[in-house]
Amino acid sequence: MKWTTEIAAAYERIVPYVRRTPALQISLLNLPDPVWFKLEHLQHTGTFKARGAFNTLLSTAVPAAGLVAASGGNHGAAVAFASHRLGHKAHIFVPELAGAAKINLIKATGANLTIVPGTYADALAAALDYETETGAMQIHAYDAMPTVAGQGSTMLEWEAQGLRADTVLIAVGGGGLIAGAMAWLQGRRKVVSVEPETSCALKAGLAAGCPVDVEISGIAANALGARRIGQICFDLAQDQTIEAVTVSDQAIVAAQRLLWQNLRQFVEPAGATALAALICGAYLPAKGERVGILICGANPAPDPFL
Amino acid sequence: MKWTTEIAAAYERIVPYVRRTPALQISLLNLPDPVWFKLEHLQHTGTFKARGAFNTLLSTAVPAAGLVAASGGNHGAAVAFASHRLGHKAHIFVPELAGAAKINLIKATGANLTIVPGTYADALAAALDYETETGAMQIHAYDAMPTVAGQGSTMLEWEAQGLRADTVLIAVGGGGLIAGAMAWLQGRRKVVSVEPETSCALKAGLAAGCPVDVEISGIAANALGARRIGQICFDLAQDQTIEAVTVSDQAIVAAQRLLWQNLRQFVEPAGATALAALICGAYLPAKGERVGILICGANPAPDPFL
Repeated sequence: MKWTTEIAAAYERIVPYVRRTPALQISLLNLPDPVWFKLEHLQHTGTFKARGAFNTLLSTAVPAAGLVAASGGNHGAAVAFASHRLGHKAHIFVPELAGAAKINLIKATGANLTIVPGTYADALAAALDYETETGAMQIHAYDAMPTVAGQGSTMLEWEAQGLRADTVLIAVGGGGLIAGAMAWLQGRRKVVSVEPETSCALKAGLAAGCPVDVEISGIAANALGARRIGQICFDLAQDQTIEAVTVSDQAIVAAQRLLWQNLRQFVEPAGATALAALICGAYLPAKGERVGILICGANPAPDPFL
Repeated sequence: MKWTTEIAAAYERIVPYVRRTPALQISLLNLPDPVWFKLEHLQHTGTFKARGAFNTLLSTAVPAAGLVAASGGNHGAAVAFASHRLGHKAHIFVPELAGAAKINLIKATGANLTIVPGTYADALAAALDYETETGAMQIHAYDAMPTVAGQGSTMLEWEAQGLRADTVLIAVGGGGLIAGAMAWLQGRRKVVSVEPETSCALKAGLAAGCPVDVEISGIAANALGARRIGQICFDLAQDQTIEAVTVSDQAIVAAQRLLWQNLRQFVEPAGATALAALICGAYLPAKGERVGILICGANPAPDPFL
């Protein structure tokens, strides 16, 4: 399989349905060169995940029973949105603990929504029952080819917008977004993965030589808290020898604050995690190295308007 | 004086110092065509006002005593930022009532700041004393040619980014931004002014045939609450027979909410006022009419990070 062909095909498929999100360059942190930003949090449902959901639905035979997902988060919202937009049924099982912000986000898409008492495990059990009963389809949040190809279109689009960065910093949870970026770039730019210290499945996998389970916690865990890095991401990361760094919750909050104070962008912790690596020095650009930051999500909880 | 030449010269002057803010198009409100947005609130200090401040400082002989402004708002922050960036002294007198959000915004620029007990009138008196004592210069917030020419560069830039709207909706306070837009467009696109019902100096002036004093109140008054429309804006608006509409505070809040829920942009009431006219039907586009919305400011109080 040729990744670049897959990603270009995915982009052609989804471009009528997704937003071409803004890119801009700004001076920051006394770095000599402007930093390139991709504001992918302006995407439908507030994250890049709409891209992978649309690509999957547009390249797969969807059963009459439609889609099912267990998610109190960004993936569930993206699946719900894309399903509804393309006229497929979707049923999303949300743990009560997801909170009003994410629940409202999914409700707003028009999908069927069941709020399950308890935690994510309870919502997952309910979703699996529904899948068995109805034949509805699940979309993997990060470790499936159509998902990764869709997310990869973010980097394709950024390059088409004139990105001139030597290095791009990307936050990692299960690894769908960074996998798409690596798959598209094929080593043409340096890729730096940024994970919270308390949820670092990619770094742990790279250290162990294979994907391993990790403990997850911290303020970005609701979006980046994958227990194990996706195999697709892991394989690409090993091939391309990316640099894997981690950041503290404190650095993430400082990055959120900087994005608000300097750029009036109010993002969730996961959306500020890539920038956090520049702020705290977890990633130090070399002299003259031009840096790009992918802002990937802006669904904070609590929602400032609720 | 040829406005388009002035505005092009202003843009050339200020372009090293201001941000080229993002433009994008999105589907909205069941309108058949996408709506064009200019996200000018990503400008330095969160509003377009940096453009006029830079243009004034770069085209005027600045006295050694530097700049002085009385403002608890967006103009003061822009003057402070531009002065500091160009190496001029600036002293901003802020009424205590301005609140922590705006005071911190001005503090962050590095300008000298005096917090004056009381209201705007007290801050203004202190600023005038300072001006008399030191010979420092004031920049008019909206009714001066270099200010208007600087603000006009917003529309120049938007067109250079590929704007394809028949009509642009722009919020109006003292009229500096819309004056710049009218001066640049010279009737090539329809311009719609949008004011709060409770602060509508332009509409009142057009009805009276000359600028008149109005009462000001409402949630956007801290940014749009000019008691009298600027003469430059008034003259341009009469020449070009723009359409002047007003919106309720309720519509402004609905527009703020929509910008957050649909685009993850958290703006102040003034920044959502242009969009409010579409939401409440104060402006109804004709069939096939393509609309542009200028988002002009995002310095909400209270600051969500304070």
